[in-house]
Amino acid sequence: MKKVRIALLGLGNVGKGVWNILNSNKEAIMKRSGYDIEVAKILVRDVNKNRNIDVPEELLTTNSEEIFNDDSIKIVVEVMGGLEPAKDYVLNAIRRKKHVITANKMLIATDGNQIFKEAAENGVIVNFEASVAGGIPVINGINESLTANKIEEVIGIINGTTNYILTKMTLEGMSFEEALKEAQEKGYAEADPTSDVEGYDAMYKLAILTTLAFETEVNINDIYVEGITKIKAIDIEYGKELGYVIKLLAIVKEVNGKLELRVHPTMVPNIHPLANVNDSFNAIFIKGNAVGDLMLYGRGAGELPTGSAVVGDIISVLRNDSEVLNGLIDRYTDKELATIDDIRSQYYLRISVKDLPGVLGKIATILGENEVSILSFIQKPKKEDFVYIVIVTHDTLEGNVNRSLEKIKELEEVNKVENIIRIENLN
Amino acid sequence: MKKVRIALLGLGNVGKGVWNILNSNKEAIMKRSGYDIEVAKILVRDVNKNRNIDVPEELLTTNSEEIFNDDSIKIVVEVMGGLEPAKDYVLNAIRRKKHVITANKMLIATDGNQIFKEAAENGVIVNFEASVAGGIPVINGINESLTANKIEEVIGIINGTTNYILTKMTLEGMSFEEALKEAQEKGYAEADPTSDVEGYDAMYKLAILTTLAFETEVNINDIYVEGITKIKAIDIEYGKELGYVIKLLAIVKEVNGKLELRVHPTMVPNIHPLANVNDSFNAIFIKGNAVGDLMLYGRGAGELPTGSAVVGDIISVLRNDSEVLNGLIDRYTDKELATIDDIRSQYYLRISVKDLPGVLGKIATILGENEVSILSFIQKPKKEDFVYIVIVTHDTLEGNVNRSLEKIKELEEVNKVENIIRIENLN
Repeated sequence: MKKVRIALLGLGNVGKGVWNILNSNKEAIMKRSGYDIEVAKILVRDVNKNRNIDVPEELLTTNSEEIFNDDSIKIVVEVMGGLEPAKDYVLNAIRRKKHVITANKMLIATDGNQIFKEAAENGVIVNFEASVAGGIPVINGINESLTANKIEEVIGIINGTTNYILTKMTLEGMSFEEALKEAQEKGYAEADPTSDVEGYDAMYKLAILTTLAFETEVNINDIYVEGITKIKAIDIEYGKELGYVIKLLAIVKEVNGKLELRVHPTMVPNIHPLANVNDSFNAIFIKGNAVGDLMLYGRGAGELPTGSAVVGDIISVLRNDSEVLNGLIDRYTDKELATIDDIRSQYYLRISVKDLPGVLGKIATILGENEVSILSFIQKPKKEDFVYIVIVTHDTLEGNVNRSLEKIKELEEVNKVENIIRIENLN
Repeated sequence: MKKVRIALLGLGNVGKGVWNILNSNKEAIMKRSGYDIEVAKILVRDVNKNRNIDVPEELLTTNSEEIFNDDSIKIVVEVMGGLEPAKDYVLNAIRRKKHVITANKMLIATDGNQIFKEAAENGVIVNFEASVAGGIPVINGINESLTANKIEEVIGIINGTTNYILTKMTLEGMSFEEALKEAQEKGYAEADPTSDVEGYDAMYKLAILTTLAFETEVNINDIYVEGITKIKAIDIEYGKELGYVIKLLAIVKEVNGKLELRVHPTMVPNIHPLANVNDSFNAIFIKGNAVGDLMLYGRGAGELPTGSAVVGDIISVLRNDSEVLNGLIDRYTDKELATIDDIRSQYYLRISVKDLPGVLGKIATILGENEVSILSFIQKPKKEDFVYIVIVTHDTLEGNVNRSLEKIKELEEVNKVENIIRIENLN
């Protein structure tokens, strides 16, 4: 049996998952890869930290040069996360002709092009299946299996934390704050949950999916991002009455030659497969012009699911069947981008108004004047000294909705536009 | 741009899909494969048949030797179906050193090993993504992405016809006969629906999935197969009351070192993702020891979805990244098989009895004596001169259930054991 030596950069959750899988599935992995994989070195910040894992101490090092200078190490597995020093290490590994596996969404979303370019120049492979949706093989799916398709749309539930929170709010009637607290207690949310609940985590992943599916360079600043903190229990309840479930969706689609890139809470019809993706599960819904509708569902995080993707990527390198990916940048074309005002969608609007005669008419008139056609218009029972009006619009331009709302806000009968949630009528 | 010449064997639905995709997505496919793909010849039975497709007549031939003897043709795409002459053609192509793509489930399930062996001997690739679940990339998923895993279980809804029929029975209250008729009118079912409704189509696909997921040779005769013809509207209704949906599942799992291989109608909890796979959609649920639960969902048939898989396979050959698959047979190990009596499951039993005192007690006693423990026991309102008793058991050996039913049938109060449906409490 041929032997290959690899190194891990990082021994946090994902690193531990990789170590455990390489050991527990060793025999199957040998047969499938044709190699006996030896972890030769593991870069850590503190050799003496108690890690609760059975790793021989002599493998641990705090000196990255021990790895980069060792020509017998052929593959470097970056599972430390964050931009720096991860970027520096990855480029270093590539320049020393080592193949790289990374689980780092931020790095690939931000500096993927430089990394792919240098990898091509140095004749090494960079695989990053684990960077999006953990164990779900969406990168390979797009790159290896859906190659016959012009992909028209990718819609993902790709942040487990927010999906857990929204599921708890939907199925158990929790408030956002209660659900977040439970997610933190269960380890699904960080102490500082900003990156998840504000949609930034999903934004990085959407950038990577877009690059692959639409073969174009994506700047994360071009992605419209809106988190879930503004979603109230009452919106979830009204959504339910209307037949919708609220999910944080990451959406890219090509409409009239322009690419829409957006992450935001969205009402999804409750009969759609995405509506039933609950708890911390992830799912990616893909529409291709040949394959039609496809959905991949599974664990988007966790040490073993993410480790599954990382180890799968290692095996791909050993089988040498992933070289083409680095040709991706050669296939890039420029895509015109839509602004958020350009998009067409249906909208759910919740407006609190004083319970005065004529207010419905005034709101309806303003919407009509701005070419927003109303699908349903419900006045909810009075709360204290105001009532909620819930409007569902037909498909319209977001710009029309925004212009209408500016005027509606000025009506003296209107207290506040409480919430605006886009509706994705997936068909 | 490099050129490659390929040939199609067959120009039915799948063949047309392949032709259309190669033309409509030509530019993207060139960029992704690095080749300009030219369809040089198409083998048909009748050159003059009206096919409603824009194929130059000079490409059509009825003489297979024109293809096999043409050394400039590097890839042969078999989309004719059936065992013979498809097998003969595929082996012929391999022996003339041509790579083969096939969409033929029956051929791969029955003669896959011989084909893989000869392909390895002749240094050519055989790809067959389209043979299972059309456009859903489950073959690549298992072979390329889940390689880090010991796969423990594969459960599929892999026959669109029966899923369409069961969906119509479930959501619209149709009888089996009505739903079958509608499926035939819509082209989802053949005039002779036997292969679909009796579970044989799913059986072939399960054999292929098992070979890949468990790296073992499978004889289709070792698969327990039960179709959906015995499912009555009343079972669907009672299932609903109990929180279940009835699906035709193809199941393989390793339990206590033995492989269970079975295709049968199954009650699935209505909150499970498989329960929401409706109409003619397919889905494959996979449990791996690293990735956890994974589900792939999409179109299991149709000219474009199946064509998507075939063309994806062609591109894989051109990228030369699928050679390892043919090493599969070298990884085979023998697996001990479970008989259907060995399996453990929960069971739904519907029994018609005379409405006499004591019958419940007698049935319960027999079940208890055979180690079948009862989860719920409902006596339904009287119909004419009998009542239905619906029993849901706890997890038990199928052998215990069968022995009980033999005795229950002998009770004078019992008219008939109307139905037995396994319950899969996926968790």
